[in-house]
Amino acid sequence: MNDSRKLPRLPSVKRLPSYLHELKLMRDNQQQVVSTTQLAQRLGLEPIIVRKDLELASSPGSPGVGYNIHNLIAGIENFLGWNDETPVFLIGVGNLGTALLGYRGFIEYRFNIVAAFDNDPRKIGTQVHEKPVFSIDDLAAKAEEFHVKIAVLSVPCEYAQTAANQIVNAGIKAIWNFTNTPLSLPPNIVQQRVNMAGDLAELSVKLSGKLYSDTPDI
Amino acid sequence: MNDSRKLPRLPSVKRLPSYLHELKLMRDNQQQVVSTTQLAQRLGLEPIIVRKDLELASSPGSPGVGYNIHNLIAGIENFLGWNDETPVFLIGVGNLGTALLGYRGFIEYRFNIVAAFDNDPRKIGTQVHEKPVFSIDDLAAKAEEFHVKIAVLSVPCEYAQTAANQIVNAGIKAIWNFTNTPLSLPPNIVQQRVNMAGDLAELSVKLSGKLYSDTPDI
Repeated sequence: MNDSRKLPRLPSVKRLPSYLHELKLMRDNQQQVVSTTQLAQRLGLEPIIVRKDLELASSPGSPGVGYNIHNLIAGIENFLGWNDETPVFLIGVGNLGTALLGYRGFIEYRFNIVAAFDNDPRKIGTQVHEKPVFSIDDLAAKAEEFHVKIAVLSVPCEYAQTAANQIVNAGIKAIWNFTNTPLSLPPNIVQQRVNMAGDLAELSVKLSGKLYSDTPDI
Repeated sequence: MNDSRKLPRLPSVKRLPSYLHELKLMRDNQQQVVSTTQLAQRLGLEPIIVRKDLELASSPGSPGVGYNIHNLIAGIENFLGWNDETPVFLIGVGNLGTALLGYRGFIEYRFNIVAAFDNDPRKIGTQVHEKPVFSIDDLAAKAEEFHVKIAVLSVPCEYAQTAANQIVNAGIKAIWNFTNTPLSLPPNIVQQRVNMAGDLAELSVKLSGKLYSDTPDI
């Protein structure tokens, strides 16, 4: 069935965790099989979208029978590379970093923040939410020791690029960037941004009733 | 100068908090005036982008002189409606909700989570990070009392739509949705999503080197 699969489209990829979450709830309820229609209803999507999305991760469901839930969970986890736990570092133990260290929700997706890094001597050597805080100078050695390829970046904006350079030099391949600053990175490094302040700006402008131009950004 | 302003484009709006952050650092350093070029360098943007973005919030900078920093901060805050503190409610005091209650970073943008709501009797009546936790049944009364128009939604996915309906019924006008579930809302309600699990999925797929189709989503 592999040849029927297409290159993934981003919106489909971003919906996969929602399927995973619903499917795990069903599995924990002893449900064995799910129809496209049921998944579509649970997620508020059109059935055609569900069918297309799940092509990424599965053989088609049998008509009139649906998808085997265990197989579908395994297929999605396999597609995303979420079969095994992914060790992740967090850089910058300020307010946001501390909040992220305390948040247990990433573990549902097998993302485990195993250690944090900072340049503040008062923080280095301590534990925050039971995670050890190391010196940023030890990043390369620890990345090798823990086999870490992903870093969560939560430093203040003015340190964002410097910290990003240290992350890249440590051999880490992807940065989940929670700062408000876009980063200049080598082309082989993956950057994923969460721009919460930008989201708040968008929300504020929408709430004020201001209109958008639909001309593309320059 | 008003007639020279254009309808805002979304990427420009989302960059405004970064300008605000840099401008406040400069102001706190006693700097009075800033050039387009300096801002562009600090933010890693092209000067033409900076000039266009700041048209939203300001008269043009004087050629050879630049922007008055105090006026530019006021202009951006005025455009975003961030002159005054915005009281916000948080719905769902689980792992993520607790992390968000503990995060002090929103206050830079005048967003103040003044109270939280849950349906768990063990949480109702307590304080979490010094914020009171009320019963979700009291949402409408408290929204009126605190003049709240924005809710942060951080309940588990399976309760997301039910909680969203309660938020809408309470007269709240905007939902900052941190659940993994898109919400069905009346057209006059603003929804802003932070899909962290979806971001992780995107990051995982990019890191695996899988390619994207650039055909539009169906």
